[in-house]
Amino acid sequence: MKDSLREILDHERARYEEFKNLNLKLDMSRGKPSKEQLDLSNGLFDCLTSKTNFVGAQDYRNYGLLDGIPEAKKLFAEVCNISDKEIMVLGNSSLNIMYDNLQRAMQFGVNGGVPFNKQGKLKWLCPVPGYDRHFAITELFGFEMVNIPMTEDGPDMDMVEKLVAEDESVKGIWCVPKFSNPQGVVYSDETVRRFAALKPKARDFRIYWDNAYMVHAFREDIELLNLLNEAKKCDNADIVYMFGSTSKITFAGGGISFFMASEANINYIKNLMSLQTIGNDKLNQYAHVLFFKTAENIVSHMEKHAALMKPKFDAVMEILNKELNGYATWIEPKGGYFVSVDLAPGTAKRTVELAKEAGVIFTGAGATYPYKKDPADSNLRIAPSFPPINELITAMEVFCCAAKIAYCEKNLA
Amino acid sequence: MKDSLREILDHERARYEEFKNLNLKLDMSRGKPSKEQLDLSNGLFDCLTSKTNFVGAQDYRNYGLLDGIPEAKKLFAEVCNISDKEIMVLGNSSLNIMYDNLQRAMQFGVNGGVPFNKQGKLKWLCPVPGYDRHFAITELFGFEMVNIPMTEDGPDMDMVEKLVAEDESVKGIWCVPKFSNPQGVVYSDETVRRFAALKPKARDFRIYWDNAYMVHAFREDIELLNLLNEAKKCDNADIVYMFGSTSKITFAGGGISFFMASEANINYIKNLMSLQTIGNDKLNQYAHVLFFKTAENIVSHMEKHAALMKPKFDAVMEILNKELNGYATWIEPKGGYFVSVDLAPGTAKRTVELAKEAGVIFTGAGATYPYKKDPADSNLRIAPSFPPINELITAMEVFCCAAKIAYCEKNLA
Repeated sequence: MKDSLREILDHERARYEEFKNLNLKLDMSRGKPSKEQLDLSNGLFDCLTSKTNFVGAQDYRNYGLLDGIPEAKKLFAEVCNISDKEIMVLGNSSLNIMYDNLQRAMQFGVNGGVPFNKQGKLKWLCPVPGYDRHFAITELFGFEMVNIPMTEDGPDMDMVEKLVAEDESVKGIWCVPKFSNPQGVVYSDETVRRFAALKPKARDFRIYWDNAYMVHAFREDIELLNLLNEAKKCDNADIVYMFGSTSKITFAGGGISFFMASEANINYIKNLMSLQTIGNDKLNQYAHVLFFKTAENIVSHMEKHAALMKPKFDAVMEILNKELNGYATWIEPKGGYFVSVDLAPGTAKRTVELAKEAGVIFTGAGATYPYKKDPADSNLRIAPSFPPINELITAMEVFCCAAKIAYCEKNLA
Repeated sequence: MKDSLREILDHERARYEEFKNLNLKLDMSRGKPSKEQLDLSNGLFDCLTSKTNFVGAQDYRNYGLLDGIPEAKKLFAEVCNISDKEIMVLGNSSLNIMYDNLQRAMQFGVNGGVPFNKQGKLKWLCPVPGYDRHFAITELFGFEMVNIPMTEDGPDMDMVEKLVAEDESVKGIWCVPKFSNPQGVVYSDETVRRFAALKPKARDFRIYWDNAYMVHAFREDIELLNLLNEAKKCDNADIVYMFGSTSKITFAGGGISFFMASEANINYIKNLMSLQTIGNDKLNQYAHVLFFKTAENIVSHMEKHAALMKPKFDAVMEILNKELNGYATWIEPKGGYFVSVDLAPGTAKRTVELAKEAGVIFTGAGATYPYKKDPADSNLRIAPSFPPINELITAMEVFCCAAKIAYCEKNLA
C-alpha cells in the first residue's frame, strides 16, 4: 500500500514539476462571469440613448422612487413569482442589501424589536459549506456562527428546527437555496416547506434567502419552491428576507438588485432606508427593463449563459472523474457557479498551497466555513466560470495533481 | 398702523382668493433639477454602447474595484483638487455615503475608537438653517443636535471651536460649505482654516463636509478653500470627511458619488466597506468619464446649468424685492439650489399652510432646523430649480401673498 502510494507520489511530483515549468498564472478563486458571458448583455448599453423617453412613473433621471421603478418591480416580481408589493428594486449589489438589513437589525431592531446590539451575544446559523462573504458579515457583527451540515436536500432541517425553536439568541440563517454556493444543491420542496413553517423562539429571527442563482441552471432546471409564498400559507410571511440580483444575469460590475419580503417587512425597512438615500440608480433599472422587456426573455437570455457554462462544468467533471476517484468526493451541479470538492481530511490547505506554488490560485481552504475554519480541512470550492476552457483544464489538472500529492504525503507521513 | 395692516390684509386676502380660484398644483418643496437641466446630460447615454471597449484597469462589466475605477478617481480628484489616493468613487448617492459612514462609526467606531453606540449620549453640531436630510440622520442615530447659527461667512466658529474643544461627546458637524443649503453661503477662507485647525477633545470627531454644490455657481463663482488640503497643513487631515456627487451635475436619478478623505480614513473605511459590497456600479462611473473626459468640460457643462438656473433665481429675487421688503429678509445666493427667507417670527408655519391651501407646496416650516423645530418659526426654504419659470413666478406670488397675510394676522392678533 505504502509502496503504491509512494509510486503515485513520485509520479505526481514529476508531473507537478512540469506544471511549474509552465510558469502558469491562473486565478480560479472567485465566481466571476467570463468575458463571453458579459458580452451577452452588451445590448443593454444600446437601450438608453440621448433620444430615449425617460418618463415612466416619473422622469427617471430625477430624484424619487426609493423602492425602484414600477416597470422593474413588475418584471422581477414576475420572474420571482411574487406580488410587486413584495419587492424593492435597488442598487447594483444584493450583498449590500443583506449587509444593510443586518446592520439595521443591529442598530434599530427588526420591525420594532430590541436592537440586536442590545441583546447580548447572538447566534447565526450557517449551512456548511457555504458562501464566505455571508459568513464574513455575521462574523463582523459578532455573531457566534453555528455550522449546519448541508445534505443533498439543503441544510439539516432537524437541527435548524431544534436550534431555532429552543434558542432565542438564534436570529437568522444564511441560505443560498438554489444551486447553493459552493455545492450546487437545490433545496427540496420539503426543506423549503420546513423553512416556511419554522416557529422561532426569537420573534426577530429572519431567514436570509440569497437566491443568487435562481435562473442559473446549465443542465435541466430544478424548480425551487417560493419560500415567501409557502411562508404565507403558514401565516409566517414575516420570517423571510429574499435577495436577488442581475450580477450574474447582466453585469457583475453594474447590474441591479432586488429585495423581496412581506409588505410589513418592506414597509419597516423602507421607512428606515428613506433616511439613508433618496433612491438608487433608476436609469440602470430602466435600461434593464428595456433590455429584457419580459420574464420569458430573461429565461432565454439565461440559456445563452448556460451554453457557455455547461462545457466548463463538463470539463471539470471529466477531469475530477478521471483523476480524483478514490481521493475525493463531489456533487455534480446542475446550475450555479461552483463545484464543491471534499478531499481527504487534512489535505485541503496543502492542496491549495501546492496549486499556488504552481501558479494556480484557488479559493482558500476553509473559505467555505465560518471563521475560515473547515474542521476537517477537506472542502474546496472550484469556480469554473471565468477562465477560458483551455486554462480551466490546465488549472484542474494542477488541482488534481496537487490533491493527489497532498493525499499521498498525508498517508505516507 | 393697525388700520394700514388691516388694509393690506384685506388686499392680500382678496388676491389670495384669486390664487385659489386658479386651482394651482405646484410643488416647490425639493431641490430637484428641471427637465431642461437633465436634458443637458443626455449625451451620457450615448457614451456606452454595445461596441464600447469596457476594459480599462479591468473589464468594468465584471466584479472588482471597490473604491471606483481609476479614470473616475482621477477626474474627480482633479475637480476637487486632491490626490487620487484621497478619493473613492462610489454609487449614486452621497447621502448614502454619509449615512453609512455615521452608521459605521456607531457600530465599529472611528479608526479603531470606541463605537459611538457604546459611548452614551453624544452630540452633533448643526449649523442652522441647514439641510433636513442631514439632521434626520443624526436624529435617527440618537444624537443630541446642537444648533450653530450661520453667519455670512459660515457657521459661528467661536461656538464651534469652544464646543469641540471642551466637550468630548461632540462627535461631528454637518457642513454644506459652498452655496449652503438653504442660504447659499460660501464659507470664508478664515472659516475653512478654522475648521482645518480644530482641536477636538474627541479623537473620533469628524467634519462631515458635504460639498454638494461645489461647481454650482450661477453668478460669478466664489472659490472655496479645500478643507482637506488646509487640514493637512495643520497635520489634522483625519478630521475631514468630504462628500460630493454628480446628482446635480448629471442625473439626480442616476449619477455617481465620491468620498474624499485622508488615506488613513479611506483605508479604515475601505476595509469595512469590503464586507458590505464587492463594488459599486462601475459602468455608470465609466459613462461619466467618457461623457466629461476632462475637469474643464465639467466646468463648461455647469455653465449650461447656470444659464438655466440664473433666470429662475433672478425671478425669485425680483418678486421678493418687490413684495416682501419690510416683511422678511433673505440672502441673494450666487449658486446652489435654494433661497432662504427669514419671515417675521411666528409666521413661517402659517405661510406654508396658506400656500398649501392655495395649491402650492413649499418645504415645511422648521425643516431647516434639527427636530424640524425652528425656534423662531421664521425660516423657509425656496427651491426654484424644478418648475418652469411661469409656474415659479406664480408660486412665488402665492408665497409672498401668504407671507403677508400671515404677517398681518400675527400683528393684528
